Amino acid sequence: MNLKQLSQLLGLSQTTISRAINGYPEVSEETRQRVLKAAKETGYRPNRAAQRLATGKAGSIGLVMPIEPNDNSDIHFAEFQRGLAEEALKHDFHFVIMPAHPHDEEQAIRWLVASGSVDAYYLAYLREKDPRIAMAKSLPVPFIAHGRSFGLETDYPFLDVDNEGAFRDAARLLVQLGHRRFGLLNGPEEFDFAIRRKLGTLSALGEKGITLAPSAMRHTAMTDEAGFRGMSELLELPERPTAVLCASTVLALGAVRAINRAGLKLGEDISLIAHDDVLPLLKPENFTVPLTTTRSSLRAAGIRIAQRLIAAIMKSEPQPAQHELWTADLVIRASTGPAPQ
Amino acid sequence: MNLKQLSQLLGLSQTTISRAINGYPEVSEETRQRVLKAAKETGYRPNRAAQRLATGKAGSIGLVMPIEPNDNSDIHFAEFQRGLAEEALKHDFHFVIMPAHPHDEEQAIRWLVASGSVDAYYLAYLREKDPRIAMAKSLPVPFIAHGRSFGLETDYPFLDVDNEGAFRDAARLLVQLGHRRFGLLNGPEEFDFAIRRKLGTLSALGEKGITLAPSAMRHTAMTDEAGFRGMSELLELPERPTAVLCASTVLALGAVRAINRAGLKLGEDISLIAHDDVLPLLKPENFTVPLTTTRSSLRAAGIRIAQRLIAAIMKSEPQPAQHELWTADLVIRASTGPAPQ
Repeated sequence: MNLKQLSQLLGLSQTTISRAINGYPEVSEETRQRVLKAAKETGYRPNRAAQRLATGKAGSIGLVMPIEPNDNSDIHFAEFQRGLAEEALKHDFHFVIMPAHPHDEEQAIRWLVASGSVDAYYLAYLREKDPRIAMAKSLPVPFIAHGRSFGLETDYPFLDVDNEGAFRDAARLLVQLGHRRFGLLNGPEEFDFAIRRKLGTLSALGEKGITLAPSAMRHTAMTDEAGFRGMSELLELPERPTAVLCASTVLALGAVRAINRAGLKLGEDISLIAHDDVLPLLKPENFTVPLTTTRSSLRAAGIRIAQRLIAAIMKSEPQPAQHELWTADLVIRASTGPAPQ
Repeated sequence: MNLKQLSQLLGLSQTTISRAINGYPEVSEETRQRVLKAAKETGYRPNRAAQRLATGKAGSIGLVMPIEPNDNSDIHFAEFQRGLAEEALKHDFHFVIMPAHPHDEEQAIRWLVASGSVDAYYLAYLREKDPRIAMAKSLPVPFIAHGRSFGLETDYPFLDVDNEGAFRDAARLLVQLGHRRFGLLNGPEEFDFAIRRKLGTLSALGEKGITLAPSAMRHTAMTDEAGFRGMSELLELPERPTAVLCASTVLALGAVRAINRAGLKLGEDISLIAHDDVLPLLKPENFTVPLTTTRSSLRAAGIRIAQRLIAAIMKSEPQPAQHELWTADLVIRASTGPAPQ
């Protein structure tokens, strides 16, 4: 059974059938049910190319894959992409992915849009006052920002984790446990999420008049190695921190190795809280000393962004700027304890 | 400086300039050098869309992203993709990625080719007598198999690791260390790489008349959790193995946890060799007891496959079936030792 045969059987145009199957609002619910029933009974499987012709859509989401020279694959990117793909699969959507060096992302987005091969796209790894926001607003294709851009008005659609709130809550807990000497292993300092995590930490410490010296703050790539080096450096400070906040369980993997190598006991000599993106390989409960974390699933964020992008595409009309700010869970495990006396 | 201006300056057609910049053989080397020199001096940056029009190429590689229901993101897929992307970036290529449930991959490949949006693609996660090979040979777009399909003649272009040789060498080493009771934590049994790793293991053991009971062989997803469960089950066998081969450092992560939980000493009570895809998060030297491994970089495989696909695209002619079989390194660390007495 092909589209033409189904069209003859039902006495409906091929366009109407395609639109019915794709959930377009122009088709009445009654007609849609009739088409779906007949498609099921006859074993008709829509041909994607025919669908796209009928709907004028490519059926695709565009994204830029950032490639840092000399850097490794990014498990955070992979986990987010997995979430996007799960949702895309439900709707027969595919991806067009442009690899790009950092700071070539604007050009990569322009190319994705100009190529006509994507119906929507998203922006990620946003920086302070990121020029991509103004560019995206001027382009004729829907987008969503995953994260925000510090210093710009948020008049664009985004989904973000409340990074400032998460790190404020985490730092407050450590202050309540009596800690006064802190360290922060953060992501690259130009990124919005790193700026907000630093602000959250500083605001909690400031409430008790505690300061954080620049030497106790590390801005690095989110890798195992950087976590190891960063923590090793913190442990050599004259005023060694008793409590460290860490922007990813990936950084924590190296940080914990540095703590072990120094012969210190995690949760006793030093407390650690890491941000947990719910990466399948780095379950905080599987660390030898289970990690206290601020938790928010990157995969769930990928699923949600795909849902919103596909909704924006299928409705074929401008969406109001939608703001979603997710609260991270603060999950207490054994890596945090009272400050050593 | 745009293409039209450069064309007027050099007295060459826009098509010739695009072909020169893209390395097409129709353009003489002398003309190419003239074009490249002028492009450099005038600061001309080719517009990709114009290039593609001139060359008739989409500038893209197609791939299928397998989505196992209820499964997590796959770090192996991400690491391979990273290699592909590094090479693609050098040539201004992008990706078209179709997510698909396992066993829907044939349809996904057909769609990629029919859409006209990809110039070449690759097949991965190949199974025994995989029907995708015959399909790929019949389609009008170049492809490379990453891996082979057990039971089929290898008359198609592929890049593979010598999985059989790697596991034969690893098992031989364990036999030489005096081990007689073995376990195997393998990938899903329908995959070619798992079949060959099992064959390599069995052949080394067979040389010494050692058998491997079905209860000592696990075929599971390549996850941390599956490694933990698999090793836990092996440790409860009446004839507990003293040596275990493991198809990935991801499985080893869970397997080592199970060994620790059982109060056994890795490298003394039990020896372990894992296959190392050189995943940045799971460095075998960073395990508490550094792991002996068979090593072959997935990222390097991604780079190489992108090189070969892009070469096949740019030459615009059928390539002879090219076979590349990479030898894995056997790297000895502390997780292997003499069989306990």
